[in-house]
Formats: sequence, structure tokens, C-alpha cells
Amino acid sequence: MGSSNRQLVLNAFLVPSGHHVAAWRHPDAEAAGGVDFAHYRQLAQIAEEALFDSIFVADFSASFDQQSAKVMARTGGSAGLEPLTLLSALAAVTKRIGLIATVTTTFNEPYNLARKFASLDLISQGRAGWNLVTTGNEPEAFNYGDRKLPPHAERYARAREFADVTIGLWESWDEDAFLRDKENGIFFDPAKLHVLNHHGRHFSVRGPLNVARSPQGRPVIVQAGSSEDGRAFAARTAEVIFVATPTLAEAQAFYADMKSRAVAAGRTGDDIKILPGVFPVIGRTQAEAEEKYQALQDLIHPEIGLGLLSALLGTDLRGIDVEGKLPELPEAIGHQGRQKLLVDLARRDGLSVRELYLRVAGARGHWTIVGTPLAIADALQHWFENGAADGFNVMPPILPGGLTDFTRLVVPELQKRGLFRTAYAGKTLREHLRLQKPSRSFHPEKQSA
Amino acid sequence: MGSSNRQLVLNAFLVPSGHHVAAWRHPDAEAAGGVDFAHYRQLAQIAEEALFDSIFVADFSASFDQQSAKVMARTGGSAGLEPLTLLSALAAVTKRIGLIATVTTTFNEPYNLARKFASLDLISQGRAGWNLVTTGNEPEAFNYGDRKLPPHAERYARAREFADVTIGLWESWDEDAFLRDKENGIFFDPAKLHVLNHHGRHFSVRGPLNVARSPQGRPVIVQAGSSEDGRAFAARTAEVIFVATPTLAEAQAFYADMKSRAVAAGRTGDDIKILPGVFPVIGRTQAEAEEKYQALQDLIHPEIGLGLLSALLGTDLRGIDVEGKLPELPEAIGHQGRQKLLVDLARRDGLSVRELYLRVAGARGHWTIVGTPLAIADALQHWFENGAADGFNVMPPILPGGLTDFTRLVVPELQKRGLFRTAYAGKTLREHLRLQKPSRSFHPEKQSA
Repeated sequence: MGSSNRQLVLNAFLVPSGHHVAAWRHPDAEAAGGVDFAHYRQLAQIAEEALFDSIFVADFSASFDQQSAKVMARTGGSAGLEPLTLLSALAAVTKRIGLIATVTTTFNEPYNLARKFASLDLISQGRAGWNLVTTGNEPEAFNYGDRKLPPHAERYARAREFADVTIGLWESWDEDAFLRDKENGIFFDPAKLHVLNHHGRHFSVRGPLNVARSPQGRPVIVQAGSSEDGRAFAARTAEVIFVATPTLAEAQAFYADMKSRAVAAGRTGDDIKILPGVFPVIGRTQAEAEEKYQALQDLIHPEIGLGLLSALLGTDLRGIDVEGKLPELPEAIGHQGRQKLLVDLARRDGLSVRELYLRVAGARGHWTIVGTPLAIADALQHWFENGAADGFNVMPPILPGGLTDFTRLVVPELQKRGLFRTAYAGKTLREHLRLQKPSRSFHPEKQSA
Repeated sequence: MGSSNRQLVLNAFLVPSGHHVAAWRHPDAEAAGGVDFAHYRQLAQIAEEALFDSIFVADFSASFDQQSAKVMARTGGSAGLEPLTLLSALAAVTKRIGLIATVTTTFNEPYNLARKFASLDLISQGRAGWNLVTTGNEPEAFNYGDRKLPPHAERYARAREFADVTIGLWESWDEDAFLRDKENGIFFDPAKLHVLNHHGRHFSVRGPLNVARSPQGRPVIVQAGSSEDGRAFAARTAEVIFVATPTLAEAQAFYADMKSRAVAAGRTGDDIKILPGVFPVIGRTQAEAEEKYQALQDLIHPEIGLGLLSALLGTDLRGIDVEGKLPELPEAIGHQGRQKLLVDLARRDGLSVRELYLRVAGARGHWTIVGTPLAIADALQHWFENGAADGFNVMPPILPGGLTDFTRLVVPELQKRGLFRTAYAGKTLREHLRLQKPSRSFHPEKQSA
């Protein structure tokens, strides 16, 4: 498989101290990272120097009460920078790398969101991406009124309409709408302005957006949902998908499913780039890599392990016997796809609760590779060439060291094999990803209207 | 008046092409400014080099239909960058200057806004300011549901509660809450975390904010409302006030009123810095300054003059006889304070509609000075030393030229007179403004609760 010029997409998933849950405690990890802009600037510049397609910052509107604060106090991620603010600042100190931010559709207004991403897209000259999510984390709702989180299907219904409105707003202006004719005093051509006039179940938005079209047409849409609703939505809307598939078989099944769904939705398989998460622990020898991993695992406090597992499963497991098996669980209100992945993992490998949290505490259900640069390049190539991935969402165990291990040791090996670029060919994120620049008439809802 | 070490506050109000309504048509003005990050970077760096306290970017969620697009097409400000995104990017390429962005309380969630400004405050190491406004521009509501703009008093009631929640969220963490104790695995001290638990008429927000406290305690709060509601609110909450007072008498009246209201609200007069807008047209001679001004006035299209006046008055004046007097107007739904200022101006000077729009088209009701650098320095000093201003919101007619005229010609004269700093003494916006760093217990509502 794979034509000769097909190349990997590489995204660097940036977090304060690293993707290992105990990363911040590691002597080599940055511990102030969450609030330190200089830390993120360094990471973005490392990734850009290594020619990555993009960097990505996740988001949640964290909320916890005084009770759970005692557990939260043991984690390193409780108070960081808001993604859009952070990526806008990073746009000013980078030149080529794509900038992807998570923002939820559950607690925002489409007009506000469309403006901010369009603005980031102009500031960065066409490098913005929006990771479109719904909020599946119950306590976040406490910050937006006295309400329960809406049910899963309802959140997706809102998200679908949210995406329609946002894409519609991004189509407010033709690329050549702005004449800036000083002599005749005509700033724009009114015929090249398009008023949205959306009236739907969740939103009524007249438009037009008060931000011009960007050099890449509009921001790239990224999604990460693996539930049935999430897949159906992504097939229609996503241009990049981040996914947690810890084994080749799961990755291949997801990849095949999403590519065929894309085709069924009237798109081509190439219109969606699928990037499994990978958590690479890199050593000069296999033994060194394993020692590195064990050193991190040893830093996990049991309260954190259980807390993390509870969050991932959408069920409070505090007080459970960690040496026993995972009990039967109620259906998760939050991320159904993620719950199923973890339950399947525990059943398949016969894990105790402790063993399960140790498995996922590192990579949180993502693919973990502990090995030498050559072994890691081999594994990535194998997935890439066997229908499992268009590239990878790289999740370094600790930062900045885990990222520089990857860029200095693994990237050159991928380049030697012709699997990764040796220079940026394009300027926009869409060009890096080899996605087509959308015409103004792409939007399916608008076409049929 | 004025103790020997009292010095002017100077803010640069940045817009795409300049504050004159026809600025974008001027041969020397930047016409692509609204979407050009490099333009704003240049302006921010000019202002920082001249030791300004801050730069400021206004905002509106513009919306217009196909009909009004024909008029809008003659203006230069229809599609620019969103302020928070823009200022975050500027934070990365400046070091000392304050960064003030307008964001409305009418169509946002306090948790989202508090996060973004707190994040900007950390990225900039304590240089963020929030210009807290309510939306008085009817068409903006069309982008946020099928609803009318709420009445003036209701918008202010929401704004007051919004400010309470936002300030409360900014007080979630003590300055020394983050221990980052790797050895013992304690990231923060739970006793130094404060959960807001706000339940009010407009908002219920549990908190805590997931962004740490900034080096200046929290962002500086700026306001610009001059209505009765606006003044009452500002007396209690504002730390900086932007105001349009076109004459010394009006400026003195406003200044005295706000300082006494601040004292009545339990604060000191020094806790609020009052910055009238000033629109300086600078020439080496008086004749050159007047020629410069006339050249700009000659570029105003009558449709634009009437459109601008309609927007400022909150009443559609299209089709009116521009040679006649201003008719009696219905009470403005939007900015009541602004309407009164303009009606008073027209009546006082016996202006025709055309004369009125020519007066305000330049500076939109702000103080206009057309003169030499010495004359302008004299005028600023006179206001500053006669109870009219703590400093000025500088609104250059065209950009970038009008700003460099001011920084190169007027600022050195102010420095020579000891009226303006010759080096930054502090690092944060709050330090530049000589405002006290708030303790966590400042918030009046929380104290009495």
C-alpha cells in the first residue's frame, strides 16, 4: 500500500509537562509549563524546526470542588493557558507550523468561535485548525449555569448545527471581496459578501462574519470522537481525526471504517487524515527505553491512577479494591468510545484495576511504544503502510525532552526512508496536510438550500 | 494641581487605517490593516518604543444585511481581527506595553471570558486589560439568536453580575498556591484554592478558574460608558475609563463626577484613571496641520457621514436633508451617553446635519486638536493640570503615520516637561498605571457575603 509520494503527517500534542500522568514530577520535566508561555514557545519551535505539520493543544473547562481538590492537587494540569489565546501568541513566533486548538461546541456561541478561529487563521497566514469537540465531562457544566450536561446525542446534534453555522460564517467573504480602491472609495464589493441567515434548532445567526477569508480558505476541522455519533459526524465534517487506538488491529478497523464512511458521505478517503495517538518512550537501547518508562510509572500515586481511570471511564472508582478486576460499569455519560476501549483492554488482558490504571496512566489509552529510534520508526512505518494511519499524533511522555528525543532521533530516520518531508513544501496547514482548499460552495447544507 | 511626580497615562487606540472615518482612503494610510497582523505588530512596537502605558483594540460583532452592505462597502473597518486573538499574538512580540481588549458582556459566558483574559495576562506576564462593555448596537444581536437586544438597564444588570463572577474567578488561586513539589508529588496547596460557587440572577458558575493568578493579580478593568448606568457601574468597578469629552468643560465635569463617585463607592480618586480620547492632527505649522485635516475631511462620502451619524445616535437618518438641522430624536436603544453628547454639540454650535457629521466623522465625538507639537503638548498639559484628565486615549487620524507623528514630535515634548516617563519603571500594566495590585479580598460582593 501507499504510493511512493505519500508521506506521514506528524502532529505534536503539547501539554504542560508531558503526556505521562506523573510527568511533572520527573526531574527533567518542566513543572511550571502550564502557565509558562516560554515553555510552549520552545516546544512549538522544536516541532517547527523538525518540520511537523502542526502542534495541538487540548482543552477542558476544568472544574472541581474543594473535596476533589485534594486529588487534583497531585496532578500537574490544573491551571494552564487557554488554547486559543496560547496559539494566537504562538502564531506570532512561528512561521510555518499548523496551530490546532480544541474548543467545545457545548458552551460557546458559533459567531464568537468562528471569529476567533478566522482571526487566528489570518494572524498565522493560514495555519489554524479547530479541534471540534462536545463536552463530555460532567463538572464542566457547573461553570455554565445550574444545568446537567446535555445527553450525548443532543450534544452531537448541537455540534452538527454548530459546525454548519461556523463553516457558513467562514464563507461570508469571497477571496477577492476586498478591493481597497482608495480612489473611488470602495473598500469591498458587496456582491462578494454572503449573508448566512441561518435559522436552526439550536442557533439563529444572521452573519456575515466580520473577519475576511484566510489564505487557506478556512481553518482545518479536526475531530477526535470515536463513538457512533462521533464517527458519523466526522465522516461528514472532519479533515483530520485524532484517535486512541492502542493496537494495530483497532487502528486498522477504525481507519477502514472512517475512510469508507467518508466515501459514503460523498467525499474521498484522502479528504480525512487519520492520526492515531502515539506515546513513544525512546532509548538508545531497548533496556534504556524500558528504564525510562519504569521511572515514570514509579512516580504515579495510587490516588492519581484511580482518579484518572474514573475520569476516562466516566465512573467514580474511588475506594474500589485496586487488586481486583474492573466491575461492570454503568454506561458513560461522557465519552462512550473511550470507555469501551478501556473495558475491552482490561477484559482482553485480564488486568486488575491497578494494572489497568498503570497501562493507561502513561498514554491514557493511546498506543505506547517503548524502544529504540529504529524500532519506533519501524512501528510507525508498519502502521502507515498497513492501513492504520495517515500519520501520528505524537504524545511525548515528558516535555521538552520527550519531544526532542523524537525530533532528533526518530524524525531523521523517517526522512531517510522517504516517509517524511525534508522541507516544508507549502505555507498553510491545509497545504502541509495536502488537503484541497475549499471553494465557497463546499458546505453541504448550503448547496442543497 | 498635580503633585510633582504625577505623570500622564498614554494609551494608543489601534484601528486598521486610522481614526478618521475616511482614513483608509488616504494615500499614506495602511488599507489592508484590518486583517494584517504585521500592521498591528508595527503599531504596538511604535507605541512600546515611545513608552506608552498600553495599546487598546475596540470590538464589535458587526452584522449587516445585503442592503446596508452598499454603505458598509465604503468603510474600511468591516472585516478585521478579533481583539483577544490579536492581542495574544501581540503579547508574544512586545515586552512591556499593556494590552487592552474590548469584549462584550452581552453575548459571552463569564467562565470563557475570565479564562481568556487570565491566559493573556499570564502570556504577557501581567499586561492584560479588559475593556468591559455592554452591546448597544442592535444588529449584533442577530448573530446570537432571534432576539432583540436587551434593554439598557437589563444589559447593565447582566454586566454587573458578569464583572462580579469574572473577578471572583480571577481570585480562584492564591499567588503562592502552586508548590510544584516534585519530591512529594504535591502540585498545588488545596487550602490556597477558592471555589466561587456563584448563584445569581444571570449566571451560576461554580469555578474554580483553571488558570493561575497572574503577576499583576488580575487584568485591569477598563470601561467606556458615560450614561448614568455606565457611570454608576464604573465608579464601583473600573480602573481605567475611556471617555469622549470634546471640550475642557465637559471633561472637567466628567472627571469631577467620576472621582467623587469613586470616593462614594469606598475607593480613592487615584483608583480610577480617566483618559479622554484625543484626536491629534499634527503639523510642523498650524497651516500644515489644518491642510492635513482638510485633506481627510474631503475624502468623506456623504453616505458615510450619514451612516456614521446614524450609528452614533442610534437612529436611522438615511434620506434626511443634510443641510437642515438635526430633528428631535427618539431615545437611543444603544449608547445613551453618546447620543446626548452629540445632540448637545449640534444645538450648541447650531450645526446642520452635514456640519455635524463632518465634526464627528473625524473624531466621532472625541476631542480634536489640529496644531503643532508644541500646541498639542500645551493642550494636553492644560487638561492634565486642570482636573480634566489623568492621561489620554490617543486616536491617530491615520495609521501608522499619525501615531509616529505623535511619538516622535509630541512625546519628547511631554518628557521634556516632566509629564511623561523616560523609561518604564514597572513591568505590569498595573504598575505602569500606578494602580495597586489587588489582594484576593478586594472584591466587594465577596467581602460582604
